[in-house]
Amino acid sequence: MGNTIDAKMQKKREKIMAVALHLFAVKGYVNTPVRDIIDESGFGTGTFYKYFANKEDVLKQLLADFLEQIIASVNNYYKEESDLYLRFIETKRVILKEYIRNEKVAGICCRAAGLSAGIDQCLKEFDDKFLLFIGKNIQYGITEGIFRDFPIMPIANATLALIKYLVYKWIVLKEITEEEMLDMATSFHQSLAIGLVIEGSRGGQAF
Amino acid sequence: MGNTIDAKMQKKREKIMAVALHLFAVKGYVNTPVRDIIDESGFGTGTFYKYFANKEDVLKQLLADFLEQIIASVNNYYKEESDLYLRFIETKRVILKEYIRNEKVAGICCRAAGLSAGIDQCLKEFDDKFLLFIGKNIQYGITEGIFRDFPIMPIANATLALIKYLVYKWIVLKEITEEEMLDMATSFHQSLAIGLVIEGSRGGQAF
Repeated sequence: MGNTIDAKMQKKREKIMAVALHLFAVKGYVNTPVRDIIDESGFGTGTFYKYFANKEDVLKQLLADFLEQIIASVNNYYKEESDLYLRFIETKRVILKEYIRNEKVAGICCRAAGLSAGIDQCLKEFDDKFLLFIGKNIQYGITEGIFRDFPIMPIANATLALIKYLVYKWIVLKEITEEEMLDMATSFHQSLAIGLVIEGSRGGQAF
Repeated sequence: MGNTIDAKMQKKREKIMAVALHLFAVKGYVNTPVRDIIDESGFGTGTFYKYFANKEDVLKQLLADFLEQIIASVNNYYKEESDLYLRFIETKRVILKEYIRNEKVAGICCRAAGLSAGIDQCLKEFDDKFLLFIGKNIQYGITEGIFRDFPIMPIANATLALIKYLVYKWIVLKEITEEEMLDMATSFHQSLAIGLVIEGSRGGQAF
């Protein structure tokens, strides 16, 4: 019976998060009062506050769930692909496909940055965990002796920055298609893997 | 005499832009009505509209001036440094130093994205010209035979994305120092120049 209660609670939490996500997407995060989320969910005020401390907490949990899905998809992909070079390139396609599947959350990430210290903190937590995940995978490649022992965090930051920027161009600017977004991300990581500068082109100077 | 009038007009335009920049930085772009810019500038309404169509136009011209300064600084640096490898790395330091010198404009770029279609259009124009400039420099390295003939725009997008993300971390999140921002940008571009994957590490497979 404990399980039934847990499942029921889980369902309520998910319902509230789905309603909030819908309202954030339609009216914008800032223009959505907690009151609207509660009313639209059909539950009472007490129910909302059993699961969430405030509106920011809803956003935080939406982002946490989203990142969990991204990581699960990447880990699933790793089960099929053991080649570290291919993993390095294709992981970005797997990640961006999760953004496409979760377009509403992705849209909030694009539009909410810089609006308030609280929101920036939520996004920062998401980014920091994401960066750690990307960094861990680069570290694995270094440990396995296939990647050069370069400083990891600048590379992880560039990967995440490009993902965020491409998603912004796709969702907010509508400047690129899903396909172009995937192509640019994989093309860039191929260049990063191989290196832009032709060896020996600098008068044989070693880097 | 024509020159004196031109100089006077130029001065008025600059005064209005300086006032607007100050107000945008203090109150935020969205919370600054055109009225406040006009009042604070000390000029009449007619003077404002002689130079600017509306508030967005002020932002557009601020961004255009900022990009002009960035490009001028990079071109100046190119006069001192002819090594294309060093240029590729150190240009990012030169660019970020312009962001540091123009912290207020940089702050607006960080905080204004996603607020309205008009603002996004202003930022997009800035980005597009910036991307062309970065792309042109990569193309030059390819033509000179020192860079591999990789698709240029994905790399240019990654460079700009990283610059924007690092500036956001520096200005909005206050998570990294100026020095760390410069170090991350140059470290990443070293990795991109040389390539992350050790050649021959994939069982001798050619990429």
